[in-house]
Amino acid sequence: MAGAVSSRGCRRLRSSQIRDLLDTKHCVLFDCDGVIWNGEKAVVGAPEVVSLLKKRGKNVFFVTNNCTRPRESYVQKFSRLGFKGVGQNEILSSAYCSALYLRDVAKVQGKVFVIGGDGMYKELRQAGIPFVGGESDAAGVTISDCPLDSDIKAVLVGYDDKLNFMKLAKACCYLRNPECLFLATDTDPWHPLREGRVIPGSGSLTAALETATDRKATVIGKPSRFMFECIASQFAVDPARSLMVGDRLKTDVLFGASCGVDTVLTLTGVSTLEEAQSYRDSHAPEEQAFVPDYVVDTIADFLPALEDGGTL
Amino acid sequence: MAGAVSSRGCRRLRSSQIRDLLDTKHCVLFDCDGVIWNGEKAVVGAPEVVSLLKKRGKNVFFVTNNCTRPRESYVQKFSRLGFKGVGQNEILSSAYCSALYLRDVAKVQGKVFVIGGDGMYKELRQAGIPFVGGESDAAGVTISDCPLDSDIKAVLVGYDDKLNFMKLAKACCYLRNPECLFLATDTDPWHPLREGRVIPGSGSLTAALETATDRKATVIGKPSRFMFECIASQFAVDPARSLMVGDRLKTDVLFGASCGVDTVLTLTGVSTLEEAQSYRDSHAPEEQAFVPDYVVDTIADFLPALEDGGTL
Repeated sequence: MAGAVSSRGCRRLRSSQIRDLLDTKHCVLFDCDGVIWNGEKAVVGAPEVVSLLKKRGKNVFFVTNNCTRPRESYVQKFSRLGFKGVGQNEILSSAYCSALYLRDVAKVQGKVFVIGGDGMYKELRQAGIPFVGGESDAAGVTISDCPLDSDIKAVLVGYDDKLNFMKLAKACCYLRNPECLFLATDTDPWHPLREGRVIPGSGSLTAALETATDRKATVIGKPSRFMFECIASQFAVDPARSLMVGDRLKTDVLFGASCGVDTVLTLTGVSTLEEAQSYRDSHAPEEQAFVPDYVVDTIADFLPALEDGGTL
Repeated sequence: MAGAVSSRGCRRLRSSQIRDLLDTKHCVLFDCDGVIWNGEKAVVGAPEVVSLLKKRGKNVFFVTNNCTRPRESYVQKFSRLGFKGVGQNEILSSAYCSALYLRDVAKVQGKVFVIGGDGMYKELRQAGIPFVGGESDAAGVTISDCPLDSDIKAVLVGYDDKLNFMKLAKACCYLRNPECLFLATDTDPWHPLREGRVIPGSGSLTAALETATDRKATVIGKPSRFMFECIASQFAVDPARSLMVGDRLKTDVLFGASCGVDTVLTLTGVSTLEEAQSYRDSHAPEEQAFVPDYVVDTIADFLPALEDGGTL
């Protein structure tokens, strides 16, 4: 049944349908912000959903574009918010995967110039990748006379709440060298704060550099497939038997679609049902990849299907 | 003869052709950076070209996307670099025209949040437009708890070498209100510094905000037509009898094309003859607007045509 309706997309799932769907999956990928928690509050029922999925033998992974924390800090946050036994190897952040990409794919020989913060620094350090970023320039130094490091072989851009003009300008100078790699942790354009306030995301800072350099960044986080490849290189996961649950259509849903994974939009985060339906009803072929297969109000909607036994 | 060759574009002008061309024009518009000066050095011969054009009865205007100086500072720079008698009314900068737009077109009722610098502040002050921008936040204040001004009715983005994350984030918050105007002084993506160094331009900072807000800025500077409309509202200028001289294909040449003005690319700045030729030879219709009608090595090539009398 699940397969029969998925081509229409945006299918609201009832409990019995969730059971049928989960029966066909061995792996569930969750986005974090807006899906299993919002800030420091777990989505009600989310810890139980994760526990029950594991109890039923599913592989569970957390795939987040949030690059502000190292993975050990996520482990602590899971524990603090009532999720039991979530281990570092189940967590894929764009900061961690960026470090993997630089070490194992690009095999960068030299230093990385980082626009980002502590989460990125820590993952790079753990991967053994030398980097610069975050150091203050001496007072009065400008981009005309500041020292530039001739050993920079990549620029990595992520969320940086200490961004300033000098960092942007230095990145522009390094990227003048066509052999200097240009990576972005993710393309999230903005993030919600409380009371309608918003902050620019990595995607916003990346757009500034793409415009200034006339280059396109290689994106590590969703919707790029790389984070799924990181999982697939370590665990036996079959895309056809996996499910991606997220709150952003242009990030999570597009990621699932690119990886051949069925997608569930949950309405506890950024994107709305109306946006999903308007993509579904659009005649633009490229917008079909933003249409989730399924929609739930919250991942707590999974609970009845997981609690009442059944064939899972 | 000038008309007969213009459809092919990129026509190298010899002195006799320059004389023929200027005979048909009553108004010459010059970009500044890379055209009449580079930094603090006038392009050799430029002061004489400007003087002789005026002596021959041409209207001369300087149309610059550089928003870092108020017009009185341009008057001083012209004088310092050996240009005689250039007055404030001949100078149209994107900062000045942004202030005009806010006052006379948008008729903004409230304050403007400015990402920019002293040049923009001064023009806004002279136009009587209240604004905020550049004030430091108290130590420890973040975007979550900083005060936001409920009277902000427009965000104006220009070149800002004191840009920081808080400014970007505040602009994002203000732009959440769909009635808050979103203006950019210009879309110049980057600017050259000495020794191959570059800095991000207004266009880079605007791209960051456009991405973060999913809105498009109204652009005041070239290639938008607005700066030509500012001239046309004060002086009798006929596009068909005007000439635009610039060094950037996607800014100056596109501006001329949009305004119905013949264009001259001068090779003392950013764009190269090869780029112009590759647009000319491109089959993409939208790239034809980047093809200059004429090309000179430097505006000093105008000198012989102006010096030897003739019918000008």
